[in-house]
Amino acid sequence: MFVIVVYDVGEKRVAKVLKICRKYLTWVQNSVLEGEISEASFKKLKLELKKTIKESEDSVIFYILRTTKYSEREAMGIRKGGEDLII
Amino acid sequence: MFVIVVYDVGEKRVAKVLKICRKYLTWVQNSVLEGEISEASFKKLKLELKKTIKESEDSVIFYILRTTKYSEREAMGIRKGGEDLII
Repeated sequence: MFVIVVYDVGEKRVAKVLKICRKYLTWVQNSVLEGEISEASFKKLKLELKKTIKESEDSVIFYILRTTKYSEREAMGIRKGGEDLII
Repeated sequence: MFVIVVYDVGEKRVAKVLKICRKYLTWVQNSVLEGEISEASFKKLKLELKKTIKESEDSVIFYILRTTKYSEREAMGIRKGGEDLII
């Protein structure tokens, strides 16, 4: 399956959340990652995030696409994510 | 079709970009909006954004789902978007 993760977390946890997400997904923009992931890895990712974020302050949203057959991705402007940009 | 928009734009343009996006979509998190949108409205949205952002500095990504039949949305933590939070 294909997962898109968007997060909005407290400044103290930003780097840690990004680090966790990057173990599983590709960074595409400031606080957005995406990628193919197995069910098992997705569970692990969610568990790690649950332990890290402050649920009373932070927000993480997962869009889970069982197939990318019916979806597209369009970009405008520059690429902000990517392997070359390491925080 | 269902569209998810994520943006990362210069501070000066944040409010304007959000305002444009909210005309067409529902705000779900800091710089993330989603919603059902017609092909025509989506074109208008992209045109308005193109005029507003600085393409050499800003980044906007659109995920376009022709159907939401094969997708799900999961959230963790608090809700950060919504009508009650007006910048």
